[in-house]
Amino acid sequence: MDERLPQPVLIVGTGLLGTSLGLALRRRHVEVLLSDVVPEHVRTATGLGAGHPHDGEAVGLVVVAVPPDHVGPEVARALAETDAVVTDVGSVKTAPLRLLDGTAGIERYVGGHPMAGSERSGPLAASAALFDGRPWAVTPHARSSAAATEAVQELARTAGASVVRLSPEEHDEAVARTSHLPHLLSVLVAGRLADAPTDHLALSGQGVRDVTRVAGGDPALWQQIVTGNSAAVAGLLTQVRDQLDVLIDAVTTGDRGTLGEILERGVAGTQAIPGKHGGPSRPTASVFVSVPDHPGELARLFADAGASGVNIEDVHIDHDPARETGLVELVVDETRSDHLHDSLESRGWETHR
Amino acid sequence: MDERLPQPVLIVGTGLLGTSLGLALRRRHVEVLLSDVVPEHVRTATGLGAGHPHDGEAVGLVVVAVPPDHVGPEVARALAETDAVVTDVGSVKTAPLRLLDGTAGIERYVGGHPMAGSERSGPLAASAALFDGRPWAVTPHARSSAAATEAVQELARTAGASVVRLSPEEHDEAVARTSHLPHLLSVLVAGRLADAPTDHLALSGQGVRDVTRVAGGDPALWQQIVTGNSAAVAGLLTQVRDQLDVLIDAVTTGDRGTLGEILERGVAGTQAIPGKHGGPSRPTASVFVSVPDHPGELARLFADAGASGVNIEDVHIDHDPARETGLVELVVDETRSDHLHDSLESRGWETHR
Repeated sequence: MDERLPQPVLIVGTGLLGTSLGLALRRRHVEVLLSDVVPEHVRTATGLGAGHPHDGEAVGLVVVAVPPDHVGPEVARALAETDAVVTDVGSVKTAPLRLLDGTAGIERYVGGHPMAGSERSGPLAASAALFDGRPWAVTPHARSSAAATEAVQELARTAGASVVRLSPEEHDEAVARTSHLPHLLSVLVAGRLADAPTDHLALSGQGVRDVTRVAGGDPALWQQIVTGNSAAVAGLLTQVRDQLDVLIDAVTTGDRGTLGEILERGVAGTQAIPGKHGGPSRPTASVFVSVPDHPGELARLFADAGASGVNIEDVHIDHDPARETGLVELVVDETRSDHLHDSLESRGWETHR
Repeated sequence: MDERLPQPVLIVGTGLLGTSLGLALRRRHVEVLLSDVVPEHVRTATGLGAGHPHDGEAVGLVVVAVPPDHVGPEVARALAETDAVVTDVGSVKTAPLRLLDGTAGIERYVGGHPMAGSERSGPLAASAALFDGRPWAVTPHARSSAAATEAVQELARTAGASVVRLSPEEHDEAVARTSHLPHLLSVLVAGRLADAPTDHLALSGQGVRDVTRVAGGDPALWQQIVTGNSAAVAGLLTQVRDQLDVLIDAVTTGDRGTLGEILERGVAGTQAIPGKHGGPSRPTASVFVSVPDHPGELARLFADAGASGVNIEDVHIDHDPARETGLVELVVDETRSDHLHDSLESRGWETHR
């Protein structure tokens, strides 16, 4: 437990994020108090061991963990009712700040946004490990005090996350690009599947599944996120529409040069995403393995892969619509793929690259 | 070896698909002959055991496995030079057919398209297992003979794939929707990352990685695929542009009702994709596990998961930029997730849902 973290920590809102944060902090023996507009939620979170019900005690740090629409008002209330440092865990940062303009004590507020979540919601889905190793954006504004900023950074670190410090404006532009735009384009692709003939969808491969996976997220939540970051999102959507116009024209007229430029730019974009552990992306290669679709077979595969001494960077399982065999893609350091391939073949696995 | 498969099979083009097909057929003791404009490629494929060099012998079935641009002319040549059944493995089906209109022997041609591939190319990337369990579209046209259609279906089955029969027009609409559109939209999202500030990309989570993964595919190949299916692709891109206009308007004006409808339609689309083994999608749930990033740890996890008796439907490994800990998502049947969670916890894994 670190003295830089003001205590007790009051968590306002005991949904998935609030309860998980309580659990993560309790793991480090931080004193945690909980409140929620629904008393039953506090009882559930308390029962899970996320902290104790708040009963008006003075607190050192308030974490507002409520749905995006309610972040601004709840932060204002916390600033008015306490003299604590106040942060939040909302997905957008400039909209609540606009609402807080001129609020007394604004120097005690520093926004935050852990890059963690789940398709599920509510305290029962919570976990002490939710933030482990995840980026946690900490977004001081122009008037945030250095002490408040340090306290919020310490909160993120204590929860197991790694701090990424950005201004509120930078944060909102960053998530518009890395989260909100991908989500909305995924939704548009998925929307085109909704009315497709069933036998056409039989040709669905791993590509379309990857592209549309996030489109399954909760519409009510995403409605709030997108409208809360409307300027940055609309700006990027407009850029995409301009590119889409160029693309449609290139496809229609058979302009291969323009089409090639757009495709090359996409390749460059995939290479711009940072690799694991913050380093530059290392070249990886895939080894594909046919695996019978029964419990224990994956265990056997990973045991054999582990025996090869090669670290698995990523795994994909291909959902094949017709066979009782799965195709497992093991992504490894390019320089190690031959060794993994040979090692698995020698153990009787049907592999290819 | 089945008598419905005319032999020998001549494979024209010994790249990834052609060589893999040779290997898959040889596994079933089918007589396979190989040709390629580059003699060196034939020698490589022959060396791998994919078949023998073609030396003018009469053949029963010709498989054209050349880049999309060359499919039509190569099919025409095979129809003219042999009296064999002719098929191909190209990604688009109507464009080559238009080129073949009026060709003598056209009743012997039936298109095909295995839904298998790789980011890699060339005979050295080939594998006998490439088609195992994958859909293989077989696309007879109006004048295809029943015998030719049956022969091509048998080819797909012998290679290990499962046949999905569609007309050429249906096929091209289907892949425009399930492959070409997702690819191009993924490219547009990735393109927006190419010029983003590096510290913004530090917030990249699994979502954007999933959405943009396919955008890393070979631009030269995708150029040919997209221009070969330009009408269907342009039609869908135009539908997406119309939806994008509505979306931009909804985001800009804060029209939550319209935004909600678009998001709900995306959810419906993700649910329309068929589940594994062709059945309806079963509800799944995810169990998240923190795993140290060392060789052998994944093996230990999958051994413990296997011991629980729960079948893993899918796996995702979250790339966290800062920590030496990975977060592994195990996707399992919803009714089995509690058991898996408890079983892993009891074995000392830090898990959450």
